[in-house]
Amino acid sequence: MLKDFQFGRPMLKDVYKQKINMLNSKLASLQQTIKEKKLPVVIIFEGPSAAGKGECISRTILSLDPRFFKTYSIATPNDVERRMPWLWRYWVKLPKEGQICFFDRSWYQDVINKYVERKGVTRSWVENKLKSIYQFERQLTDNGYLVIKFYVHITKQEQKERLTKLASKQSTQWRVTKRDWARNKNYDKHLKEADKMLELTDFEFAPWHIVDGMDKKTRAVTISQTIVDSIENAVSKKQSGSLYSPSNKDLSGGFGLIERPKLSEIDLSKTIDDTLYKELLDKYQKRLLKLQNKFYLYKIPVVVVFEGWDAAGKGGCIKRTAAGLDARSYQVNPISSPTPDELSHHYLWRFYNTLPKDGHFAIYDRSWYGRVMVEHIENIIDENTYNRAFREINEFEDELINWGAVIVKFWIHIDKQTQLLRFKERENTPAKRWKITDEDYRNREKWDRYETDVNKMIELTSTVNAPWYIIEADDKHYARIRVLKTLESALTQKLKSEQHRFT
Amino acid sequence: MLKDFQFGRPMLKDVYKQKINMLNSKLASLQQTIKEKKLPVVIIFEGPSAAGKGECISRTILSLDPRFFKTYSIATPNDVERRMPWLWRYWVKLPKEGQICFFDRSWYQDVINKYVERKGVTRSWVENKLKSIYQFERQLTDNGYLVIKFYVHITKQEQKERLTKLASKQSTQWRVTKRDWARNKNYDKHLKEADKMLELTDFEFAPWHIVDGMDKKTRAVTISQTIVDSIENAVSKKQSGSLYSPSNKDLSGGFGLIERPKLSEIDLSKTIDDTLYKELLDKYQKRLLKLQNKFYLYKIPVVVVFEGWDAAGKGGCIKRTAAGLDARSYQVNPISSPTPDELSHHYLWRFYNTLPKDGHFAIYDRSWYGRVMVEHIENIIDENTYNRAFREINEFEDELINWGAVIVKFWIHIDKQTQLLRFKERENTPAKRWKITDEDYRNREKWDRYETDVNKMIELTSTVNAPWYIIEADDKHYARIRVLKTLESALTQKLKSEQHRFT
Repeated sequence: MLKDFQFGRPMLKDVYKQKINMLNSKLASLQQTIKEKKLPVVIIFEGPSAAGKGECISRTILSLDPRFFKTYSIATPNDVERRMPWLWRYWVKLPKEGQICFFDRSWYQDVINKYVERKGVTRSWVENKLKSIYQFERQLTDNGYLVIKFYVHITKQEQKERLTKLASKQSTQWRVTKRDWARNKNYDKHLKEADKMLELTDFEFAPWHIVDGMDKKTRAVTISQTIVDSIENAVSKKQSGSLYSPSNKDLSGGFGLIERPKLSEIDLSKTIDDTLYKELLDKYQKRLLKLQNKFYLYKIPVVVVFEGWDAAGKGGCIKRTAAGLDARSYQVNPISSPTPDELSHHYLWRFYNTLPKDGHFAIYDRSWYGRVMVEHIENIIDENTYNRAFREINEFEDELINWGAVIVKFWIHIDKQTQLLRFKERENTPAKRWKITDEDYRNREKWDRYETDVNKMIELTSTVNAPWYIIEADDKHYARIRVLKTLESALTQKLKSEQHRFT
Repeated sequence: MLKDFQFGRPMLKDVYKQKINMLNSKLASLQQTIKEKKLPVVIIFEGPSAAGKGECISRTILSLDPRFFKTYSIATPNDVERRMPWLWRYWVKLPKEGQICFFDRSWYQDVINKYVERKGVTRSWVENKLKSIYQFERQLTDNGYLVIKFYVHITKQEQKERLTKLASKQSTQWRVTKRDWARNKNYDKHLKEADKMLELTDFEFAPWHIVDGMDKKTRAVTISQTIVDSIENAVSKKQSGSLYSPSNKDLSGGFGLIERPKLSEIDLSKTIDDTLYKELLDKYQKRLLKLQNKFYLYKIPVVVVFEGWDAAGKGGCIKRTAAGLDARSYQVNPISSPTPDELSHHYLWRFYNTLPKDGHFAIYDRSWYGRVMVEHIENIIDENTYNRAFREINEFEDELINWGAVIVKFWIHIDKQTQLLRFKERENTPAKRWKITDEDYRNREKWDRYETDVNKMIELTSTVNAPWYIIEADDKHYARIRVLKTLESALTQKLKSEQHRFT
């Protein structure tokens, strides 16, 4: 794409003026359309140093209302970002509906610069990253985001001249670093790799636009024109509702799955006596604390998900798990209906915002699985979106696993009769009465539909690296011990598999 | 407070068991009360290394529902935090109503460790920091927060023994640093300074509780008992509504004020012709860009506030200001009614969450001044809270100035007739119709009350370092030039005053 790119002649001033004025007024009115149609727009600029990416953005936004866009300049990750999944810093910056985000450099630079400049970075590392990028951009566009990607291209000679000019002025010399000179020297290698990367990531849903960066006027017109076309195109698509619909063949997204029993096959008669309960509780909490110390030391993040029927005892299980951890090492994230702000972002956005730092535990009291349970049953999402969600969730968890996380997911299971007993008990206990509402009864009426969906969820998202554990919870004590034991075993296994790193 | 502290004997096991069980069940039920009464609780733990602060927190939270508290371990600021006001990292972590936050170490360690361990840190630096702490804790308690402060105290000998024990075990040796040993060696000096600091910050609204840290049982009982008492006390206070009420003498909080004219004294007939407008717009935008480059280089943050009548032209002024800046150097923060999440925090919390990094600009389209305009006029806050807000806002801005920020505040001023003309014009222009709502007309009916409040606001918050600028805006072009010129002059002045730092 880059190698055979034809640089053009500078644009004539009159032509430019006429074109850019027309485009700017279109852009200004399209900003209104974006708001009305609730379209979130992500625009990224890549390209060599001194290609004029910043200037491109500055010029583009002149016609926009500054209250409805944000601009991010992406540099080396800071020390918070380094402790999170690599795409985390982009996820948390995603615009909401009706807003535009400009990225001056993006997830692509994270890959290419490392690959070209660091020894020991392998081709397979790059492939893995490009796969993440593919999933990321697909997840965005599938969920209504418009992603526009520009590569601002200049020749080696032009880059050299610009760097020389910047370095010669006192006010701009700080902008030219040693690395920039090195990149100019290595221009051909960078170009070759960038070209390869662009070809591999020129997705139908998020294609690249190569911009002739030699002439300010040409590039301004190309960029504005592309943005106008892309937005108009996205808006008309949105109106016709033609979003991607997954085939029913492999809703899980091709992930290796572990077989799990159906809920109806679970033996709920299991119990534990009081003495043994206390003994084991103490034993596993102590073991957990020791393990957690190591996870902290080795900076391994842990994500624990609790889902289950109302009144199944999730809270009690969470409390006993938390009690086995150092207070400073974990956070419990109670997940309820999304706020308006959360609703206007990609549905996984709010979960990215609650991830733990490495070495820490995040315990979720309900989670992203609401997407394939309540949101489906209450018709908050359509069937297409529902079917897509299994793959999206598996990919999300896969990103966490690539980051180094352990994921343990519990379905706390009781039968319908036990639920009723617990509802009644709560109503009769003043301190617990707040826990029970009419909604609990309404959900209870939908028990069968939930059971179908939960079975499907457990089937399609029990991936090899993040399987579900169904916990028999008619006996609360039994459930708590099972949770602690399962967690302990998952953590121990992780440590074993990583031992080579720490010895 | 510390020097003459009497360490007690270890508590008997039976006494302990009885007391702690009673306290734990009280604490568990008080957590429910906190939620009902919407009380936010901040609990901090200070004290020497190995005093057992972490263990104190772990033990306290055993009886709490982990969904309603968070624990933060405060270490050296990370590189994001270092670029923000020093209390920023605490502000953004504040709990919301009904929640508890535990801080393992806090704002106090930022002061004392630096003072004792770093050369060149002066007594007046400390005094300045303690003043900030005083204001911070007062602002919290005035706004309904309960602040509980523990100092866990142990002897030098005990600390030495604990460090030795930790260092001797393989699993815990990483927890003991060189710094810990140095602090043990310097125990007396630390104690003396800590004692001084505790005395100076033992506020009536947020007193210190010294905890005998020698015996695990004693300290657990003291801490739980104190938390129970403090919460019960706060709840009963909240019921009787006995919050601080400021005297009317100096609502500004003792800040030096600059005199500003009343709105009625402003000459709104000023205009500018088209040619001059274009010329000056270009000139000042270019100057602004140059200045911004320097602010970026010198890492000085800039906060620009736009307030003004509906349809006064704030948006146009903001757009022309932004157009003079590098796209990557600023963010525009449009402020509308607070979300439920924002409402359940201190009202300044959401503004802390939108502050710029150092070297960057944050432009506010409306701001924290809503507190003393719309929130007062619409009776969202009572008269007491209103009167308190001027001092709180001046203190907030003072914190930003201490951080190194420039603050420039604009009141974009038009007369009532001009507003009506603009409303009509908007209604008659399809592209602008969305900008005008019934609410605008309702606000217009309250013009006189707004005028009174705006005059009072400008009078009481035009501090020497962050004065208001009233911009004559019946002529939109005139207003934009005045905004750019004022900003340019404020920035130039700041650079001059800081020149010694950069040459």
